[in-house]
Amino acid sequence: MVTYADVEAAAGRIEGVAHKTPVATSRSLDERLGGRVFLKCENLQRMGAFKFRGAWNALSKRADEARERGVIAYSSGNHAQAVALVSQLLGAQATIVMPNDAPAAKRAATEGYGARVVTYDPASENREEIARGLAQGRGPLLIPPFDHEDVVAGAGTAARELLLETGPLDLLLVCVGGGGLLAGSALSARALAPGCRVIGVEPEAGDDGTRSFKTGTLQTVKNPRTIADGARTPSLGQITFPLIRANVDDMLTVTDAELVETMRFVWERMKLVVEPTGVLGLAAAFCRHVDVTGKRVGVVVSGGNVDLAAAARWFAS
Amino acid sequence: MVTYADVEAAAGRIEGVAHKTPVATSRSLDERLGGRVFLKCENLQRMGAFKFRGAWNALSKRADEARERGVIAYSSGNHAQAVALVSQLLGAQATIVMPNDAPAAKRAATEGYGARVVTYDPASENREEIARGLAQGRGPLLIPPFDHEDVVAGAGTAARELLLETGPLDLLLVCVGGGGLLAGSALSARALAPGCRVIGVEPEAGDDGTRSFKTGTLQTVKNPRTIADGARTPSLGQITFPLIRANVDDMLTVTDAELVETMRFVWERMKLVVEPTGVLGLAAAFCRHVDVTGKRVGVVVSGGNVDLAAAARWFAS
Repeated sequence: MVTYADVEAAAGRIEGVAHKTPVATSRSLDERLGGRVFLKCENLQRMGAFKFRGAWNALSKRADEARERGVIAYSSGNHAQAVALVSQLLGAQATIVMPNDAPAAKRAATEGYGARVVTYDPASENREEIARGLAQGRGPLLIPPFDHEDVVAGAGTAARELLLETGPLDLLLVCVGGGGLLAGSALSARALAPGCRVIGVEPEAGDDGTRSFKTGTLQTVKNPRTIADGARTPSLGQITFPLIRANVDDMLTVTDAELVETMRFVWERMKLVVEPTGVLGLAAAFCRHVDVTGKRVGVVVSGGNVDLAAAARWFAS
Repeated sequence: MVTYADVEAAAGRIEGVAHKTPVATSRSLDERLGGRVFLKCENLQRMGAFKFRGAWNALSKRADEARERGVIAYSSGNHAQAVALVSQLLGAQATIVMPNDAPAAKRAATEGYGARVVTYDPASENREEIARGLAQGRGPLLIPPFDHEDVVAGAGTAARELLLETGPLDLLLVCVGGGGLLAGSALSARALAPGCRVIGVEPEAGDDGTRSFKTGTLQTVKNPRTIADGARTPSLGQITFPLIRANVDDMLTVTDAELVETMRFVWERMKLVVEPTGVLGLAAAFCRHVDVTGKRVGVVVSGGNVDLAAAARWFAS
């Protein structure tokens, strides 16, 4: 099982390669919520999301093998760009399996980092099977988006940096897709701030993790309709779910309307471009799902990769 | 005439009150332009723009008088919010003269800082006359938006901070409305980086400053149509124009389409919300009006106050 020692080892590996992202605060946010809120800005991480940390941690320790065999990943989002960029930095050839309806901008960004893109039909094909097929035998190294020990440990380094900078917190709010960021963040919180409550936040339409957490058995969801595209994953993972059960205090959901309201504040008042998935944690506090009065609250803002045309639709009303 | 000693005095006054804003850099920006670009992020300044610096510098040294007489300013933009916030912090009553067609959000933001808003009809009334009328005798202290020695000196503290952080630069790009930011920035550049070329950048439709600079006589423009709303001022000022002639190397213009292209990069890739006026300086480099190859280039990003509904229109296409 992944431990905090793995997070510390990951922190050593990413040092000088990943950005030590800034922690943003806002007087007006604190006044509004009556607490002190610290946003760990992984939207300012390389390629625009925390995913760089896990991809670097997983691949840099197998750099020779990655160069020899190549690397493969399945993702239409931030993990694709993370694996593509890390592979480029290590001199390895990445192949990304991506749905044929993925936004052109995401495909272009991935190819911009030197990756080969293999498309599939999401209506009739399964991306994991395609990736596993391509990776079998001595094929390319497969780096899964969250359910991988090195990916979880790498993801945990963001909360570690946050806690080392802010000192103890009362509450840590973390967005949840497959649970890699939450599982890793909780390891850091348990080690560095034992009294800190850790809460995972999902979009209402993709509440599989919350249901899994409440029932104790792994629940799934199929293609949830939510603007939080990083949290459309069908379920928590074999590695992440036990870690979340062991180290997380609660899970809850927020609506897409609440995500837009929260993004509007962060964009307009804090001048930071954050993606819908990125504000899941903050939305829980901003829209009063959790009371933060008098508390010191950390939020891991997972990323800032948005299509501005889509953002225009969210903010048009 | 304002000198660098005034900028240094202003820096002492604002210390601990204004934010020492971060300097943002981007590998992809540098690769694209072939130089090293440093963005001084005044969009992350209090109330979202550099205007806080000048307003604090002008009012804090007259705090007793401001509290006794009140404060007045005419502006529909960032200067209004700056004077309102500074007055609130000093315990003085601010009155802001604003056109009756100013966006509701700007009026609400100004009132949110405790200011009284007086509206006028921009088609038939002159805002300066209204403000001077209200300020006459022992009426409230009038703080003009740029043509004021303390306002210029305060504005110059942003470039001073930038140069102290980055060390010498080859080029400094600064946006221009009434010229307060440019005049102050040039004072700092002359003192701290004597070899640094200083260039002012205007929107094409509001090219009065560029024409003034080229001809040596003050030129005007009337209600220019540009999305750079902070640069719609009719002319440089009696204080700012001589300073610009003395200390600035060149002036040039960029189009609104170039502003949108530049903003798109800064929002999408650097995750920073900047307003159209705020990217005037960067647009000059980004759209190749000036060659920055192999150069160390500073850009003062003046602010980030945008209406997201308007931004939706810019980015919709």
